[in-house]
Amino acid sequence: MAERRPSDGPASRLSDTAASRPRADRRRVVIEGVRPQVDCGSLPAKATQALPLLVSATLVADSHDPLVAYVRHGPPPGPQDAAELPRSWKEIPLDAHGNDRFAAWITPPRTGAHEFALVGLPDDYGAWLHYLRIRVDVGQDVTLDLEEGAAMVQRRRRTASAGDQRALDALAARLRSRRSAAARLEIAERPATVALMRRTADRSDATVAGPFPLWVERPRAGFSAWYEMFPRSEGADPPHSGTFRTAACRLSSIAEMGFDVVYLPPIHPIGETHRKGHNNVARPGPGAPGSPWAIGSSAGGHTAVNPELGTLADFDAFVAEARRLGLEVALDYALQASPDHPWVKQHPAWFRHRADGSVRYAENPPKRYEDIYPFDFESEDADGLWAALLRAMRFWANRGVRIFRVDNPHTKPLRFWQWLIGEMHQSHPDTLFLAEAFTRPAVMRRLAKIGFSQSYTYFTWRNAKWELEQYLLELSQTEQADWFRPNFWVNTPDILHATLQRGGLPAFRLRAVLAAIAGPSWGMYSGYELGENVAVREGSEEYLDSEKYQLRPRAWDRPNTLVPLITELNGIRRRHAGAVAQLNTLRVHHIESEHLLCISRATPANEDVLLLVVNLDPFATHDGWTWLDLNTIGIPGDRPFVARDELSGASYTWQGPANYVRLDPAVAPAHVFSLTAS
Amino acid sequence: MAERRPSDGPASRLSDTAASRPRADRRRVVIEGVRPQVDCGSLPAKATQALPLLVSATLVADSHDPLVAYVRHGPPPGPQDAAELPRSWKEIPLDAHGNDRFAAWITPPRTGAHEFALVGLPDDYGAWLHYLRIRVDVGQDVTLDLEEGAAMVQRRRRTASAGDQRALDALAARLRSRRSAAARLEIAERPATVALMRRTADRSDATVAGPFPLWVERPRAGFSAWYEMFPRSEGADPPHSGTFRTAACRLSSIAEMGFDVVYLPPIHPIGETHRKGHNNVARPGPGAPGSPWAIGSSAGGHTAVNPELGTLADFDAFVAEARRLGLEVALDYALQASPDHPWVKQHPAWFRHRADGSVRYAENPPKRYEDIYPFDFESEDADGLWAALLRAMRFWANRGVRIFRVDNPHTKPLRFWQWLIGEMHQSHPDTLFLAEAFTRPAVMRRLAKIGFSQSYTYFTWRNAKWELEQYLLELSQTEQADWFRPNFWVNTPDILHATLQRGGLPAFRLRAVLAAIAGPSWGMYSGYELGENVAVREGSEEYLDSEKYQLRPRAWDRPNTLVPLITELNGIRRRHAGAVAQLNTLRVHHIESEHLLCISRATPANEDVLLLVVNLDPFATHDGWTWLDLNTIGIPGDRPFVARDELSGASYTWQGPANYVRLDPAVAPAHVFSLTAS
Repeated sequence: MAERRPSDGPASRLSDTAASRPRADRRRVVIEGVRPQVDCGSLPAKATQALPLLVSATLVADSHDPLVAYVRHGPPPGPQDAAELPRSWKEIPLDAHGNDRFAAWITPPRTGAHEFALVGLPDDYGAWLHYLRIRVDVGQDVTLDLEEGAAMVQRRRRTASAGDQRALDALAARLRSRRSAAARLEIAERPATVALMRRTADRSDATVAGPFPLWVERPRAGFSAWYEMFPRSEGADPPHSGTFRTAACRLSSIAEMGFDVVYLPPIHPIGETHRKGHNNVARPGPGAPGSPWAIGSSAGGHTAVNPELGTLADFDAFVAEARRLGLEVALDYALQASPDHPWVKQHPAWFRHRADGSVRYAENPPKRYEDIYPFDFESEDADGLWAALLRAMRFWANRGVRIFRVDNPHTKPLRFWQWLIGEMHQSHPDTLFLAEAFTRPAVMRRLAKIGFSQSYTYFTWRNAKWELEQYLLELSQTEQADWFRPNFWVNTPDILHATLQRGGLPAFRLRAVLAAIAGPSWGMYSGYELGENVAVREGSEEYLDSEKYQLRPRAWDRPNTLVPLITELNGIRRRHAGAVAQLNTLRVHHIESEHLLCISRATPANEDVLLLVVNLDPFATHDGWTWLDLNTIGIPGDRPFVARDELSGASYTWQGPANYVRLDPAVAPAHVFSLTAS
Repeated sequence: MAERRPSDGPASRLSDTAASRPRADRRRVVIEGVRPQVDCGSLPAKATQALPLLVSATLVADSHDPLVAYVRHGPPPGPQDAAELPRSWKEIPLDAHGNDRFAAWITPPRTGAHEFALVGLPDDYGAWLHYLRIRVDVGQDVTLDLEEGAAMVQRRRRTASAGDQRALDALAARLRSRRSAAARLEIAERPATVALMRRTADRSDATVAGPFPLWVERPRAGFSAWYEMFPRSEGADPPHSGTFRTAACRLSSIAEMGFDVVYLPPIHPIGETHRKGHNNVARPGPGAPGSPWAIGSSAGGHTAVNPELGTLADFDAFVAEARRLGLEVALDYALQASPDHPWVKQHPAWFRHRADGSVRYAENPPKRYEDIYPFDFESEDADGLWAALLRAMRFWANRGVRIFRVDNPHTKPLRFWQWLIGEMHQSHPDTLFLAEAFTRPAVMRRLAKIGFSQSYTYFTWRNAKWELEQYLLELSQTEQADWFRPNFWVNTPDILHATLQRGGLPAFRLRAVLAAIAGPSWGMYSGYELGENVAVREGSEEYLDSEKYQLRPRAWDRPNTLVPLITELNGIRRRHAGAVAQLNTLRVHHIESEHLLCISRATPANEDVLLLVVNLDPFATHDGWTWLDLNTIGIPGDRPFVARDELSGASYTWQGPANYVRLDPAVAPAHVFSLTAS
């Protein structure tokens, strides 16, 4: 059993190299660059239950001898396991990937805290075998080598099981027999022999790195399709609001489109003071419902339901109906209050105050947001505030809500989120958190590192080929993939990108394909399927007559919507879930054309490979030749393979890296090929 | 005083986020990505005495408020400093560099162990001032803001000195006075006011990261020019060897060329058994001196001097003469033995043995190196061996040698080097170690991380523009610069690159300029100045009649050598030492031509800027326009500046990024411009 010495873990001080250390440290292997990892193991990296996870590291030693490496993983050790890696942990060998990088896939079996460690040692038998093979090939005398091999085999007895001891004795005898060198080499090379020698290797001088922490979340964390809707619009007859009851009628259509999560903007009572009117005008007209993010009125705050939507029981029924249809409800967790929120009077210490005692509203000078009071997370009663906010989340968690889309987390202290998520991991460990933080990269990354299960991204603003390629590579091929799960939203109530405004339905289609196939998770705000694309003014990303400020009942059964395409996309995702869920196997392939993007998605061993070719131009046909990196998707270069377009049903026979594609936006925005090697 | 809480250091476990933590952690700032750092602070990063060191980190917090950041540094704390960062440590503010990156230069004052920590906190005063400024600009009422500012000022009294308290009181009074808003804004913005508010800020909720360890080495570690010579050739009259006495006569020429270090291949007795002959033939002719790396004979081993070179006293005199001329002697530390080494008989356990009891010689099957016995670092008497090898190094250190060029460290255990260097840091802390490890990147990097002061690199094999740019960027712009000090050797006794073989003296010139100006340290093996470029056979990098196997007395005073150029280059280096020693300010500039390479070297604040333009083609003239990144070298774009070519003495007036250069290899291989903004 390998000793658990913190050899390559963090923070051993300089004095460790001083004379006080045992002089001859026989551990020859050094382990570095372990992934997945967050900031020196100070936070857990992310994993998803039942989804293979790539563990990798750099292992080096002196000389040119081969190394063997293993990853061991399991639940965090109990106090009795202090000295060693637990015997119950699984062990998987790592494969050499070149440039001293070793990797293997492990599959975390259950959610919650999990750990892994790396073990490395010189492959003494492999080195001996390598020398033997070369010598036999050139006809050198191998008498001494075979004797040394037999001696190595015999030394293994000491740490071997009884059965293995017998096998070792037999092997030693064969190496010492009078057979030819070639024959004895053949015995030595047999997979069973190599396995025996690997299995019985003495690990006293193995190097151990770790353990490193993982937080394993349920499958929906790593693979989900989100639909955002405002319940108050569904079944509304302005000025009469829709309710949970009428909104529940929409759920079956959402489920039929293949979505997993229904996300609702805040469902709480809405303030009246400084309520915003249609299109965010300062003076609301009569019947203006206000912004759902202006939370709190005399009817209650963060643990109440807007009476216009119904009662708590109506909410429960909505959640139950969603569950019946295979959907999960996500709520918006927005930490701010309207001036009418009960806490303003009950807990004035929870808000910032001006010098004249008035409550400080949100500002980005010179802009003023007088309908929003931010909380004071550093106030004298910070403990009380933090506790109340946690209670509010647990209130909804106890009602069966286990996904929260968190509004603007970057304007609340980072350590608050770290604490809150940690608390929820204790009480409701299956809770997922989506960070809606459109801010600077370092902040977005920190939120992901401290525990947000998924994150909104810059996806909406990545439209040209070069910027999509760069962004997808950053998300999938850098260490960011260890702790950042992107959720690609094609639109939100705040973001109607110019591409959609200008490009109409063809643009809506290409962006939907991109989000749904490139993203392990993707999201859509209702109205997208109808191609709603009118902005409030030229150059703005705000919708005209935004649903944030008014009721927007829609006629869903008009012709010529994106519903068939969206349904198809979510179906493709589910049929190829193993490939779509794997972020770090995403590869960019070369394709000649500034307007065509070509990426692949694949399961770890390329059993299931999707190849997406998207025409990023909604206006014109484009064509060109691919130059596929076949090796990376496990397709042999020397024989044909089948590319079946899952969108159209058409199949093509391709061969080699160069294959022709042509996409007319009037016909289809993309090919979503499923590749099968023949 | 900032509390020393290990906030963002390594390895706090998941349980830290559990309910057992204090609920409201008021530390808003998060510190990540600290540089310089080696593997999570597990090893010290490198610094050089009196050379500015760039410390940087990512600091983020919630909201958009500005942050202030400081670096504190000093000698490692004693036991009495356990809870806090030592009061004696210096403190320097960090500047914002964009994208949440902050940086500052610190200059380690002395050699040895040193540490630094980062402190970050929200800039409450800066945030307030920012809001005030905007409001005043647009004419909003600022009555409340000014009162809140005064209150903030008064809260500072609690942690302020008596003098600062008076200043704070005065400031608060002014903010509350009846002056105009604009006038009070002006007072608030004054640098002295900002400084006062920064100085008196309450740091109880500051975030501290670190301390992080540094190992500061003497200036020669970060800036050195090396000359390699075989003493036995200097003054030789074959078959009569040169000696330390005759070799000492060469030292003044080496010093005049401007070198700092004279590196000698192994000076120990050379084995007779299996001695290699001229050009590495198996049978030595009479008088063949053998390879100096086949160490050990009846005359002694690693602590003896080859009698053909003289006595220990002669060696001491050689070292003294070098010192008198301002040179330092570096010895070759080669851990292997010839079959005649005394240890083979005295300590058989220190060698590997075949099954028949014979000593195992070095091999890379099917090649055999029968004149070399590697040591067995894992033997039963590993402790004895390690101790003897350390004693051997200390033997020479005690004779005044404080630089060791280590032969093939990658074939000896990595932990041995870590231990040895650690031991030497205790007994002879001014010792420098140069790793000669031509091997895979991960191994070369690990050797640097564990303490080798300098490293040979892939420089010799980087000849085309694209590969030089890529390699220089890797060395200077990645985290490798935190722990890897490159030494650019233009040739070694083992490496005569094809570029030199084919290109003759013009190639020798361009490679010398490249090494000497791009490299903080560079090295040359004797004969280079004469343009020796005949290989043993076509396609080989071995010299014909290699000095490794025979005496090579040279006639130094022939005409048409590189001596004037080399002297000029070392002179330029010394006149611009601050720029040449700074690895991470190296920048690559665009220049139109596949054959021209353009890089800059600069002191931290661009007080001294060198611009190198090299023609990489030894055969033809090339020209083109630069596109300089002026901002990065501190040259204003809107007025002329002077480019003085230190090689030719000619001056040019340039302006803007686009400037014309033309280089004819028959005239000069390069321009080495010193730039002066006017």
